[in-house]
Amino acid sequence: MLNVGLIGLGYWGPNLARVLNQTQRCNFVACCDLLPSNVERIVRQYSVVQGFTSVDNMWDKVDAVAIATPISTHFDLAQEALYRGKHVFVEKPLANSSERARKLVDLAQKRQLALMTGHTFLYSPPVIRVKELIESGAVGELHYLSLSRVNLGLYQKDVDVIWDLAVHDISILLYWLGETPIQGTSFGRACLQFNNDVAFVWLQFPSGVIASVEVSWLSPQKMRRTTIIGSLRMIVYDDNDPNEKIKVYDRGVEITEPQNFGEFQLTYRTGDIVVPRLSNTEPLLTEIEEFIRCAETGDVPRSDGKFGYEVVRVLEMVSKNLTVACKETAAAMPGSSR
Amino acid sequence: MLNVGLIGLGYWGPNLARVLNQTQRCNFVACCDLLPSNVERIVRQYSVVQGFTSVDNMWDKVDAVAIATPISTHFDLAQEALYRGKHVFVEKPLANSSERARKLVDLAQKRQLALMTGHTFLYSPPVIRVKELIESGAVGELHYLSLSRVNLGLYQKDVDVIWDLAVHDISILLYWLGETPIQGTSFGRACLQFNNDVAFVWLQFPSGVIASVEVSWLSPQKMRRTTIIGSLRMIVYDDNDPNEKIKVYDRGVEITEPQNFGEFQLTYRTGDIVVPRLSNTEPLLTEIEEFIRCAETGDVPRSDGKFGYEVVRVLEMVSKNLTVACKETAAAMPGSSR
Amino acid sequence: MLNVGLIGLGYWGPNLARVLNQTQRCNFVACCDLLPSNVERIVRQYSVVQGFTSVDNMWDKVDAVAIATPISTHFDLAQEALYRGKHVFVEKPLANSSERARKLVDLAQKRQLALMTGHTFLYSPPVIRVKELIESGAVGELHYLSLSRVNLGLYQKDVDVIWDLAVHDISILLYWLGETPIQGTSFGRACLQFNNDVAFVWLQFPSGVIASVEVSWLSPQKMRRTTIIGSLRMIVYDDNDPNEKIKVYDRGVEITEPQNFGEFQLTYRTGDIVVPRLSNTEPLLTEIEEFIRCAETGDVPRSDGKFGYEVVRVLEMVSKNLTVACKETAAAMPGSSR
Amino acid sequence: MLNVGLIGLGYWGPNLARVLNQTQRCNFVACCDLLPSNVERIVRQYSVVQGFTSVDNMWDKVDAVAIATPISTHFDLAQEALYRGKHVFVEKPLANSSERARKLVDLAQKRQLALMTGHTFLYSPPVIRVKELIESGAVGELHYLSLSRVNLGLYQKDVDVIWDLAVHDISILLYWLGETPIQGTSFGRACLQFNNDVAFVWLQFPSGVIASVEVSWLSPQKMRRTTIIGSLRMIVYDDNDPNEKIKVYDRGVEITEPQNFGEFQLTYRTGDIVVPRLSNTEPLLTEIEEFIRCAETGDVPRSDGKFGYEVVRVLEMVSKNLTVACKETAAAMPGSSR
Repeated sequence: MLNVGLIGLGYWGPNLARVLNQTQRCNFVACCDLLPSNVERIVRQYSVVQGFTSVDNMWDKVDAVAIATPISTHFDLAQEALYRGKHVFVEKPLANSSERARKLVDLAQKRQLALMTGHTFLYSPPVIRVKELIESGAVGELHYLSLSRVNLGLYQKDVDVIWDLAVHDISILLYWLGETPIQGTSFGRACLQFNNDVAFVWLQFPSGVIASVEVSWLSPQKMRRTTIIGSLRMIVYDDNDPNEKIKVYDRGVEITEPQNFGEFQLTYRTGDIVVPRLSNTEPLLTEIEEFIRCAETGDVPRSDGKFGYEVVRVLEMVSKNLTVACKETAAAMPGSSR
Repeated sequence: MLNVGLIGLGYWGPNLARVLNQTQRCNFVACCDLLPSNVERIVRQYSVVQGFTSVDNMWDKVDAVAIATPISTHFDLAQEALYRGKHVFVEKPLANSSERARKLVDLAQKRQLALMTGHTFLYSPPVIRVKELIESGAVGELHYLSLSRVNLGLYQKDVDVIWDLAVHDISILLYWLGETPIQGTSFGRACLQFNNDVAFVWLQFPSGVIASVEVSWLSPQKMRRTTIIGSLRMIVYDDNDPNEKIKVYDRGVEITEPQNFGEFQLTYRTGDIVVPRLSNTEPLLTEIEEFIRCAETGDVPRSDGKFGYEVVRVLEMVSKNLTVACKETAAAMPGSSR
Repeated sequence: MLNVGLIGLGYWGPNLARVLNQTQRCNFVACCDLLPSNVERIVRQYSVVQGFTSVDNMWDKVDAVAIATPISTHFDLAQEALYRGKHVFVEKPLANSSERARKLVDLAQKRQLALMTGHTFLYSPPVIRVKELIESGAVGELHYLSLSRVNLGLYQKDVDVIWDLAVHDISILLYWLGETPIQGTSFGRACLQFNNDVAFVWLQFPSGVIASVEVSWLSPQKMRRTTIIGSLRMIVYDDNDPNEKIKVYDRGVEITEPQNFGEFQLTYRTGDIVVPRLSNTEPLLTEIEEFIRCAETGDVPRSDGKFGYEVVRVLEMVSKNLTVACKETAAAMPGSSR
Repeated sequence: MLNVGLIGLGYWGPNLARVLNQTQRCNFVACCDLLPSNVERIVRQYSVVQGFTSVDNMWDKVDAVAIATPISTHFDLAQEALYRGKHVFVEKPLANSSERARKLVDLAQKRQLALMTGHTFLYSPPVIRVKELIESGAVGELHYLSLSRVNLGLYQKDVDVIWDLAVHDISILLYWLGETPIQGTSFGRACLQFNNDVAFVWLQFPSGVIASVEVSWLSPQKMRRTTIIGSLRMIVYDDNDPNEKIKVYDRGVEITEPQNFGEFQLTYRTGDIVVPRLSNTEPLLTEIEEFIRCAETGDVPRSDGKFGYEVVRVLEMVSKNLTVACKETAAAMPGSSR
C-alpha cells in the first residue's frame, strides 16, 4: 500500500487530510506545513501521521504526495516530488502558467509517475451524470452553456476570481465537451481591491458550442448554476440545490421546412422534466482513491496532468484577453463607441 | 380630451387597446391594421372604436397615435404622424437605426409634439423602486450589474434576441444609472436559424460600472433576474417571482486600512434582507396615461424620444461589436488562441 | 344548440360568462343579477347576451342555467330551474345542507335533467393526472394525504373557511379516492370575526386512508399544496407552482421480513423525480363544455349532483364535529386535560 | 471546572461528544456505552476521554452527566445520577411518562442539582428570534400556529412519530407561548409498522391560541415549516432554508367598525417582508454550555426539568387522545358518521 504525504495544511489541506485518513486504500503517513500550529492540529487529529515543517525531511517517508499549497508554489513542489520519484496530486490549478504545467506533464511522463490535478468536480455525481447524458446522445447536439458561480467572499490574495472560481467551470466544460476552446475572452472589474472580484468569461469551442461563465466574490446570493442547451434536451444543474441538483428538460424548438414561400415554421416542444437520482458519494474521496489507484496501476486519471495543463492554458488565454473596467482605460478598449 | 388611435393590432397591439380603453384620460377612437380580421376583433371588443385597414383614413380622427407595428415600419409611421401634427407613442425600440431614431427626435422637437417610446419597464413598480434605492444612496457606489432574461421562445422573425430582449435590460440600465455606456460588445450564436437566439452582452459605463446581460430564446426555465451590486447594499430583482420581486441585502465587504506591512483586511458584513412592498399598478396603463399627460401638458416623459434614441444607439453599438460563434469564423475572432 | 343563461354576476359569475362566451358549443343568451350594474357590465361586454334583474323573465329564453349566486340561494334557484325543465349547473357547494342537495339530485333524476356541481378542480390537468397515477397503480396502496390551502383573504360573509376553501380539497379527495370518508372532525378558530377563518380537518376513509386538510384565510404566503403518500410512489401537487405543479417521487420505505429474532428491517428507496408535462387547458372551460355535452347527451358528468351531494355531506359531518377554540369553551372540549 | 461524562454513544451521543470536546468550559473526561465499539470510536477520537462499558465505574470520575440513551432508560439513569449527586442533562424527552419526569424534577430540586432537558431548539437562533418578536409585541395578539415536520425516515423503534418529532414542536410552542395547552388531540396512522409514522396534532392553549402540528416519517420532501399568525405580523420560520429561515410579514386584516347597518368592513394590510439576520452559533454548543453554567451557578436553564416535564405531559395528553386510523376501529371513533 502506498505511503502518502500531504503538503499544505492551510484552508484546503485539512479536507484532503480527512479523506486520506478515511480511505482504506493508502497509508496516510506524513503531513507538512511551514506553520507549526497547522501541523500540530493535523497530527493531533490523526495520530498515526507524522508532522513536518520542512518538506525536505518528509520525502523519504512517502511514495506519493498531495500538494495543497498556494498556487505559486505548485510548480516547485511538484517538480521536486517528481524528480524524487513520487507520484503527485496537485490541487487545481496545476500551475500558475501553462509553460510550467507543461513541464510537469513532461517530467511525469518521462519518469512514468502519476500526475493528477485536483479538479474535484470531475468526480462529483451531478457532473458525471451530465457527462453521461451528453455522451449518450440524450442531449442531442450541444448549442450553448451558461454557468454562474457567485457568492459573497472568500477573497483570495494571490489570484483573481477567474483563477479562483472560473477554474472549476472551465474544468467542467472541458470534461463535458471533450474539447478545448479555440478562443476565450473576459470582462471584469476589481471593485474592491487589485484583483478582479467579478468577471464574465466567453468561450468558443471548435465544434461551434459557446459558453459564458459568470464568476464573482461579490454577490448576495450563492449561485452554482449551469444551463446546458442541446437540440434534444436542456439541463439545469444547480449545485446549490440539496435535493434536485439536475433537472433534465425534454424541451426544444423544432424547425419544419418551409412548405410555401420560404417561411420556416417553429414548433415548441415541452415534455416531462426528470430529476435523476444521484449517488451521494463524496467527490473528494472518489478523487483521492482514483489518484491512489492510478499511481498503483499506471492508469490515467480523468483529471491527469495533461487535463490540468489544458485548464491552465484556457485560464491563461482568458486572462490575456481580459478587459478590465476602469474609467481611465475605457476609452482604449476595443468596441469603444468614442 | 385627446382622441387616440392605435396602429398595429398583431401580437402586442391588443394589450395597448385594452389600456387605451381602460383609462379615463383619453378617447380611444380609432384602430388600424393591414389585416381586416385583426381590426374586426378589436372593434367587436371595444364598440366605440372605429376600425381602419389603411392608416391614411385614420389621421383626421386622431390627435395622437400609439404605434405597435413591426420594428422596420416604426420610422415611416412615426414620421408621418409627426408631420401630420400628431403626438406619437412608439413601441420599443423607437426605430431600427439610431440615425432614424435621431430624426424622429428632432422632428418631434421642431413640431413641439410629444414623442414617447414604449419602454414599459420604466413604469414598473420594482424597477422604479430600485431606481429610488440607487438615488437615495442606500445602495452606495455601484460596482456592477448582472442581468438574465431567458426563456423558451418566442422567436422573432425580423430581429435577433438582442433587439428583442436585451432592449429591455438596456432601457432599465440607462434609467437606473442615468448614463449611457461608452462601450458595449456581445457574443452570441444563431443556434437554430439565421438570427442570434442567444447572446451575452457586456457594457461599460463612464462611471466605471460594468454590466452583463444574458438573453436567450432557448432556455428551459424562464428567468428575469437582475443583480445590482453596490458598496452598501446588494439587490436581487427577480421579475418572475410573484411575491418577492425585490430583495434588498444589507451585505457587503469592507476593507480596513492595513495596520502594518501593507496587509489589507477584509470584513464581511451580513445584515437583514428586506422585501419592500410594491404597488401593483399595471406598468402599461401607467405608461399610456403618462403619454397622454405629457401630450397634453408638454411635459417630458421618462422614456421620451431622446431616451428611446439612446437605447437604439446602445443596441447598435452592441450589435456592431458582436462576435457570432460558428466554426468558420472562429479563427478570425479577436482573442483567438491560434 | 342549447341556450344557456347565467344567474349571479357578482364575484365568480363573470368568469362563467367569459367561458360561456368563449365556447362554441352553446348559445350564451341571457344573464341575470339583482344588481342592475352587474347586469349592465356583462351585457356591455357580451353584446348578444340579454340581461335581466329578475330571474322570472329569463326562464323562457333558456334551456339550461348556470347558477353562481350566494350559497344560501342555490337550493331555491336550482329547484325552480329543474321544475321548469332546465338543465342546471350550480357552483360548489351544491347546497347549504345535504338534505337540500339530496332533493335536487332526486328532482333532477325524476325530470331526467342534467344536474352538475361546479367542482372545477375535477377538470384541472394536475388533479386529473394524479387521479390517473392512482388508478394506474403507480402510486401503490395509498397511505395518507395532507392538503394545505391557505392565503390572506378573501373573507366570505355567509360561510366559514371550511365551506369556502376545504370544499375544494374534499371534492379532490373524493374524486381521487373514489370513496366517502366514514368520519371527519375539525378544529378551528374564528380569529377575526364570527366565522372560522382557520380550520384543520381530519378525514378517515373506509379503505383506511387518512387525510388532513388545513385551510385558512389568515396566512401570509399563499399555499395550495397537496402531498399524496403511497406505498410505491409519493406525489407533491403544488397548484401554486406555475412550472412544476406535480412532482412524482419514486421514493418509499420497504420492510423486509425479520431474519432472526423478530427484528424487521427498513430500507429507504430513493429514485428519480418526474415532473410530468401537463396540458394547459382551462379547467373552467372544460367543465362548462362537459356540462353542455352531458345536458345534450344524458351522460353523467364527473361532478354530477350525486357527487356534489357527497361533498356537502362531508362538509356537514366535518362542521358538526367542529371544535371551535375559545377561552370559555376550552374546558368543555373532548380531550381536555382538566 | 466540572468533569463531565457522557452516557449513550449511539446515534445522537457522538454529537454531544463533539461539543463537550469543543467547549472550553468543562472537562470532558468520560464516556460510556454498552457497546464496546461505540466506546472505542469516541475514545480514539477524543484521546483524553476515558471509556466505560458500564456506567457503574464512571460515577466517581464525574460531577455531571449527559444522557443520550434510548428514552425508556432515561428515568433510571437520571435518577441514579441524581442520587449520586451529579448534575444531569437528559436528551429529550425527559422521560417516557410524566410521572417519572415529575419524580426527576422533585429529586433534582431536593438535591439542589441541575436537571436540564435537551430541547435543543430552545437554543437555536431562529427560535429565539421568534420568541423575541412575540415578547416585544411586534407580532401582536397571537391567533394560531401551524407546524410541519416531515421527511422520509428515520424510523424509530421504541417511540412513535409524536414522541420522536412532535416533541420538538411542542417544546417550541411551550417556549414561545409561555403556557401549556389545556387540551390536545391527535390523529394518526401506522402505515408501515406498529408505531404511528404520521400524525396530526391539535393543541389549544389557555389564551385561546390554537396550534396544529403535522409530523411524518413518510414524506418525500423534508419540511421544517412553522407559521405564526398574529394580529400585527405573521412569521414563516422555515428551518430548512439555509439563507432565509425567518420571514416576518407586515401583513394582516383589519376590521373597521360598521358605519351603517351593521356591516363590518375588512381591510387587508400588506407591507414589507423582513428576513432578519441570525447569528450562526450552534444550538447544541450553546445548550451544553448553558447546562454547565447552570450546574456551576445554580441558575435555572430555559429547558430545565420542569420544562421537560411539561413537554412530556403534553405528549402524554396528545397520545391519550390519539385516533388511530384503521378499518376496524373506524366505526368506533367519535365523529363517525355511521
